[in-house]
Amino acid sequence: MKKILITGISGFVGEYYSQFLQNTTKDSIIHGVSRSKPRWDLLDTIKINQIIEEVHPDYILHLAAFSSVAESWKTPLTSFLNNTNAFLNIIEAVRIQEINCKVLSVGSSEEYGIVKETDLPLPEKYPISPANPYAVARVAQEYLAQIYVSGYNLNICCTRSFNHIGPGQKDHFVVSSIAKQFADIALHNNDPVIKIGAGSITRDFIDIDDVVLAYDAIFRQGIVGETYNVCSGNGYKISDIVHFLSELTGIPVKIEQQKDLFRSVDNPILIGSYKKLQDHTGWKPHIPIQESLKKVYNYWYERLS
Amino acid sequence: MKKILITGISGFVGEYYSQFLQNTTKDSIIHGVSRSKPRWDLLDTIKINQIIEEVHPDYILHLAAFSSVAESWKTPLTSFLNNTNAFLNIIEAVRIQEINCKVLSVGSSEEYGIVKETDLPLPEKYPISPANPYAVARVAQEYLAQIYVSGYNLNICCTRSFNHIGPGQKDHFVVSSIAKQFADIALHNNDPVIKIGAGSITRDFIDIDDVVLAYDAIFRQGIVGETYNVCSGNGYKISDIVHFLSELTGIPVKIEQQKDLFRSVDNPILIGSYKKLQDHTGWKPHIPIQESLKKVYNYWYERLS
Repeated sequence: MKKILITGISGFVGEYYSQFLQNTTKDSIIHGVSRSKPRWDLLDTIKINQIIEEVHPDYILHLAAFSSVAESWKTPLTSFLNNTNAFLNIIEAVRIQEINCKVLSVGSSEEYGIVKETDLPLPEKYPISPANPYAVARVAQEYLAQIYVSGYNLNICCTRSFNHIGPGQKDHFVVSSIAKQFADIALHNNDPVIKIGAGSITRDFIDIDDVVLAYDAIFRQGIVGETYNVCSGNGYKISDIVHFLSELTGIPVKIEQQKDLFRSVDNPILIGSYKKLQDHTGWKPHIPIQESLKKVYNYWYERLS
Repeated sequence: MKKILITGISGFVGEYYSQFLQNTTKDSIIHGVSRSKPRWDLLDTIKINQIIEEVHPDYILHLAAFSSVAESWKTPLTSFLNNTNAFLNIIEAVRIQEINCKVLSVGSSEEYGIVKETDLPLPEKYPISPANPYAVARVAQEYLAQIYVSGYNLNICCTRSFNHIGPGQKDHFVVSSIAKQFADIALHNNDPVIKIGAGSITRDFIDIDDVVLAYDAIFRQGIVGETYNVCSGNGYKISDIVHFLSELTGIPVKIEQQKDLFRSVDNPILIGSYKKLQDHTGWKPHIPIQESLKKVYNYWYERLS
């Protein structure tokens, strides 16, 4: 029986990943830790050591994170502690206890920072240049992972995961927010106005089901010490998302750009290349954005009904 | 009156810098914090906030650090906390309290990692690639500094300081260790054997008095958000240091390379370019290595007499 420890198991990706494991594997035991159930603090090194000792995992999927760029500008210290330090505490426990397990360190496309449009889609070897506190925390995490591989022979793969979308994602994430607003308009006959931040911001959105398969592929075939983009390879503007949902729902809308959703410093565009992950594992994304948007819209339509 | 807060004031650089301030400025008050006198923990955010509030500094020279590469391999978590987190706590206190002060973030040449010899001497724009836990901690510190400049308008300059030498440095630093061994041989007629790690390791050694002038120059003329190499521009092998001291003292010695001083992963060679710092401030190093070695040797000769 393989023992899999998932941190942040009650989060968006955690719930999908554990469901995926339950559907596909019979020889594994899932151990989850999350902030809420049971309350568990990834900054408490003693508790982390206890958990690692008790579970003695074969795999660790480290999803627990403070993953909002906007929030990281408000509380940069909290962001750093809950991303970098939390991860460091886990791999340090694995190192000290000499546990033979494979760790997946989930990072972010934000690590690339502000990039040249002509360089898109970004390969992993593209220089990183973090432009917000969250991105710095993820970069530090990735460097730590690499040192624990090269210096202590830990078995860690890293990702730079691009923007996820899927049903169940909280509505402070942009696509979820827009889809919720559409559902709200459809159900409650509100003013057909969609409130967004900067409509020209372009991101590489990847369906949560593709993300889950990517992480599974990295666990099975990812090469130790390597960092992989987990992305769709396509970029869409926030305003494109609104237009797609407008077409999908048949609701013509007006876009209202809100200043307070703009961030101090933001990356105008980020699109990744998934070539390396495909070359190493065979994985590639297969869910088109329209299908993802439909799922997210339907989720909110049901929730708000 | 300008108020200057020096963290790590009782350390090697701290003592030289506060002596320099006492010798050269009449309109400044030095506030020092160090681990020993009074006991003060840079990881205690409440205490840091109190100190920053009480001192309300115009300048912060952040020297307190865990600066041993070898030790960072033994205790990577301690290294990270006492370098990155300690620095983050300070700048976060400055940010929250909206204190208008200039901060000097001292980093390390180790941030460059393993470099091509043909690229030496390294300019600051050379890609960083940290290869040990200490280096990762310093890189994270520098990224955090940059974000606090770009996102919160803090006034921070960063250094990548190369290997310091000077009287008073602890003997776990290589040059100090070698000079002490020579003094011991000269005084006590021991076997003329000098124990070192890998003799081929090449470093850019800079005299502590030049370091102090560099930090002063950066405080006065360094451009906000910039990172400066603080270095001599010359590289010497560890075995060169032994030969120089052998000439200086007239003591012929045998070199004994000790395996246990070798590190898991080490950078074979690091030499910096000080062009940027010279261009921005006029500073340049002026103490030749032979003079530095003479001072260090004389220090140990007196200490051991």
